[in-house]
Amino acid sequence: MQISERLLALRNKMDALGVEACIIPSGDPHLSEYPSEHWKIREWFSGFTGSAGTLVVTTEEAGLWTDSRYFLQAEDELDAQCIQLFREGDPGVPDYTQWLGEVLMPGSKVAVNGETVSVSLLRRISRELRTAQVSVDASHAAAEEVYDGRPPIPENDVFLHEEKWCGASRSEKLEQVHQIMRKNGASHYISAALDEIAWVLNLRGNDVPYNPVFHAFMIVETSQVKLFINPHKLTAQIARKLEADNIKVSLYEDIYKHIRHIPEDATVLLDPDRTNSAIFAALSPKVTKKEQLSPLTRLKAQKSDTEVQHLRETLLNDGVAMVHFLKWLEDHVGKEKITELSAAQKLKSFRAAQPGFVGESFGTISGYGGHGAIVHYSVNEESDVELKPEGLYLIDSGGQYHGGTTDITRTVPLGKFPEQARTDYTLVLKGHIALACAVFPKGTRGVHLDILARKALWEHGLNYGHGTGHGIGYFLNVHEGPQSIRPQDNGIEMEPGMISSNEPGVYRRDQYGIRIENLILSRVKQESEFGTFMDFETLTLCPIDSRLVDAGLLTPDEKAWFNNYHQRVYEQLAPRLDQDHQQWLKEKTKAI
Amino acid sequence: MQISERLLALRNKMDALGVEACIIPSGDPHLSEYPSEHWKIREWFSGFTGSAGTLVVTTEEAGLWTDSRYFLQAEDELDAQCIQLFREGDPGVPDYTQWLGEVLMPGSKVAVNGETVSVSLLRRISRELRTAQVSVDASHAAAEEVYDGRPPIPENDVFLHEEKWCGASRSEKLEQVHQIMRKNGASHYISAALDEIAWVLNLRGNDVPYNPVFHAFMIVETSQVKLFINPHKLTAQIARKLEADNIKVSLYEDIYKHIRHIPEDATVLLDPDRTNSAIFAALSPKVTKKEQLSPLTRLKAQKSDTEVQHLRETLLNDGVAMVHFLKWLEDHVGKEKITELSAAQKLKSFRAAQPGFVGESFGTISGYGGHGAIVHYSVNEESDVELKPEGLYLIDSGGQYHGGTTDITRTVPLGKFPEQARTDYTLVLKGHIALACAVFPKGTRGVHLDILARKALWEHGLNYGHGTGHGIGYFLNVHEGPQSIRPQDNGIEMEPGMISSNEPGVYRRDQYGIRIENLILSRVKQESEFGTFMDFETLTLCPIDSRLVDAGLLTPDEKAWFNNYHQRVYEQLAPRLDQDHQQWLKEKTKAI
Repeated sequence: MQISERLLALRNKMDALGVEACIIPSGDPHLSEYPSEHWKIREWFSGFTGSAGTLVVTTEEAGLWTDSRYFLQAEDELDAQCIQLFREGDPGVPDYTQWLGEVLMPGSKVAVNGETVSVSLLRRISRELRTAQVSVDASHAAAEEVYDGRPPIPENDVFLHEEKWCGASRSEKLEQVHQIMRKNGASHYISAALDEIAWVLNLRGNDVPYNPVFHAFMIVETSQVKLFINPHKLTAQIARKLEADNIKVSLYEDIYKHIRHIPEDATVLLDPDRTNSAIFAALSPKVTKKEQLSPLTRLKAQKSDTEVQHLRETLLNDGVAMVHFLKWLEDHVGKEKITELSAAQKLKSFRAAQPGFVGESFGTISGYGGHGAIVHYSVNEESDVELKPEGLYLIDSGGQYHGGTTDITRTVPLGKFPEQARTDYTLVLKGHIALACAVFPKGTRGVHLDILARKALWEHGLNYGHGTGHGIGYFLNVHEGPQSIRPQDNGIEMEPGMISSNEPGVYRRDQYGIRIENLILSRVKQESEFGTFMDFETLTLCPIDSRLVDAGLLTPDEKAWFNNYHQRVYEQLAPRLDQDHQQWLKEKTKAI
Repeated sequence: MQISERLLALRNKMDALGVEACIIPSGDPHLSEYPSEHWKIREWFSGFTGSAGTLVVTTEEAGLWTDSRYFLQAEDELDAQCIQLFREGDPGVPDYTQWLGEVLMPGSKVAVNGETVSVSLLRRISRELRTAQVSVDASHAAAEEVYDGRPPIPENDVFLHEEKWCGASRSEKLEQVHQIMRKNGASHYISAALDEIAWVLNLRGNDVPYNPVFHAFMIVETSQVKLFINPHKLTAQIARKLEADNIKVSLYEDIYKHIRHIPEDATVLLDPDRTNSAIFAALSPKVTKKEQLSPLTRLKAQKSDTEVQHLRETLLNDGVAMVHFLKWLEDHVGKEKITELSAAQKLKSFRAAQPGFVGESFGTISGYGGHGAIVHYSVNEESDVELKPEGLYLIDSGGQYHGGTTDITRTVPLGKFPEQARTDYTLVLKGHIALACAVFPKGTRGVHLDILARKALWEHGLNYGHGTGHGIGYFLNVHEGPQSIRPQDNGIEMEPGMISSNEPGVYRRDQYGIRIENLILSRVKQESEFGTFMDFETLTLCPIDSRLVDAGLLTPDEKAWFNNYHQRVYEQLAPRLDQDHQQWLKEKTKAI
């Protein structure tokens, strides 16, 4: 079926339902950033494969809204005859609710599958459309019903994340949840987020590529926990362990039935941003709702000492893999055929040789030349190009290990490069260093810190269209909340134990992309009469290519950071390397 | 009447009305930051004279909530027997709605005068109390009725702000308002903000100390403008001019009657943050409301070229007054008796000698030694101390001129000072310079820029408990919105033509306060493929005391900024000074 035929089928369905438009977001019932194939509804109807985007279809028109990370990709993938691209954030570009308000007549109805939008998002959509006298019906799964050949819900096995890696038993973690529930006077706590459920139960799965999660819902009650999951996914051993911890297993599809049966005198704690609106709709209106940031989101984000300790070891191993890769690339580029795809494959093989490696943490972004300028470039057979011994190459990749999740970006020259790239790279590096060195009082949020990574670029009229830092899971999703270092304020304060990425960049369309990414740990630095002050420890260990650095643009402090970092990289990685690689690393980490 | 008697009278009134608590905010029906004496209700009942604070009285208890600028002052002024101080922002301190939710029984009623709270604030209070099953009744003026000997509404004359100063006629300004109304399909626009009304009508008044505004409301309709004002305030000349511009004058107290008569098919544009909730309540529920940032707030904030040009001239004059003051202080301290009060008086006399001077723009903060650490220190006969030839002196002051409003802070040593003060001062200066030099893309908000002024302090475990920058009116209120450079995000982007203060500081309780404040103008710097970039021009011209600077802590760029600024100060002020003062200024602006 062509995109046009799929849209036609949807429009017929809309006609039958008596709605004038349909909103198809990227979400699944767990509001996952990366849904399983079963839930890639927006992708099937639009052809756009990026991770973020919303398709809106009216009887006459269709539009796809996505952010600047995906502008180039969406231009490539969308059939402009069928679907118009709306570049979110560009001047004059309306939100899809504004647009719907303009193209629809007052009195129109818009359908959206309530399972695929959060409580907050549905509220916002409804509120914004109300001013145009357009109503929203979240009770239909119009698009899902039309989807021909839709893949099934994955039924892969769940496995244990052993306690030696976790640092706390599931009982201990659940007790922390119960404490928060008691503090809030809550009798029930609903979690629909797959990474939260995996983390608290010390279980992992294989239902979604790169994210070691499994499809489930969870209701924590005062005296027991209900886990909604296809029971075939559980081994006998895991089933026994869950039972021992007073965790009762019910069928995955029974979640809504159970929600409907929550008694009217219950007090239910839920996160309106992480709970789909169909769950909320299933709750009795009389139930008292306590809406707040999900307790598990917060507990999971503040890594324990054990988790941090394992992650340090993991990052040593990941650094060794990166050193092997970077040396191999330098030695072989121009001498044998290396492509974006084969390079990514090679890096994966170096990671696979490391202890504890389970898989990649996301699809490697392996971008040569102009491809590096596509922020979330996803290389495939058609786009794949050969790396030549000239210009810049950007590689953003990471691994899932039992002892943590990694995410690192390096940009390297493969030969000659334009002088402008040296300035650009140095300005990105200055931003990276400024964030790495940040000192800030407790209470500081990501929105405050973001400018540190951009200031040097801004002074030269440069910028980048993505956030500076995201949270990262522990052998879990490579993107996790609640903290976020970006110009948008999400109200979340940086807390000790949070691990975030530090990844400023700059992108010259059709020329090259530059990004330097390390993981940073928030920690307490000092107490003074002015309060508690925090800073970051850079955890990632891998050389940052100094051939691209214009040392004249660095301040003495920046130079000192750069040289100290490289000294640390050498000292910590060298004992794990053979002589050849030690020699190479010595050269790469030489002081500038 | 003692505070305890006043509270008793209020509690009797609450009893008669059947309410369990009363909220008394600082606001007047125009939501002015500095209300006239008639509206200082919270002050009369609490004794606390700071500009920001909310008194909450229950049958048993009373609490005053204020922010860190006023902690020391509130401790001094409150009778702790009667009223508990709640330090907003301190860990564990509840909001007053949280507190009310805890101390009141479910089913209780809270009274607040709807005229003294904004639409947004009443909504928030109601929403937050609803979770505790406490309702809010905004239809009573309980506190106002109990207020014995309440001063009348001021009846001072209004005067013209001549067009040569304004740069645009009232018709031109009103046409801009009508354009915005047409774009929003609005038939009515309600403005209750005194500075907006003064600005758009090119009128000024004397109803509030320091703020040249007058009591009025305004309704802009499609074909006419209604001004609600006591007609005795208008001279015959002004009345004729208003009539010629199709502005119809009605009685001040008739505003609510007119609001009630707005037809049901009207579309009313109003700003929920700048409109009191009694106005909103008087509107028919059937009227369509367009809630947004008040168009006049935005128009007024983006100064015209004419306004900026006059302000430049005004700041030259203000700089001359400051030079006279600083030299006089240096020459006379320790040789004759100078107190905080007499110094402030002296500065006023230097300003009064300048062309276009009308009055002070706020009560001068003249703080010697430990008094400098009280951020909004208000000197009076009792607190007044003599300045001795040692330690630090902070003076924060400004003037109202026909050609603009000024606001400047300088901190100077009067003799020997602790070495710690030099480091503190230099760190404050580094923050001041960082903000002055900021380059940022269009779309940047104050919340993003705030950290620039704090970074150097944070690195040394220091901080300050107030915002970094506020907007400033044009011969109007010294504090005006919508922009604000502070850690709280108000969603407002920096726009070309906005003028803000740049005033980082550091405060050592009982020792000294340091603040360095200039006014900065937002302007477009460059266009690049990455968008439009903006920067600031520092407008204020007055030496920044270099005796307190540790040049070793400054980077070469910071030193260059400091020396360039001083060169500009000298070049621009010297032609307006006699030889003695030129000589002094030459010395004060010597390169470091």
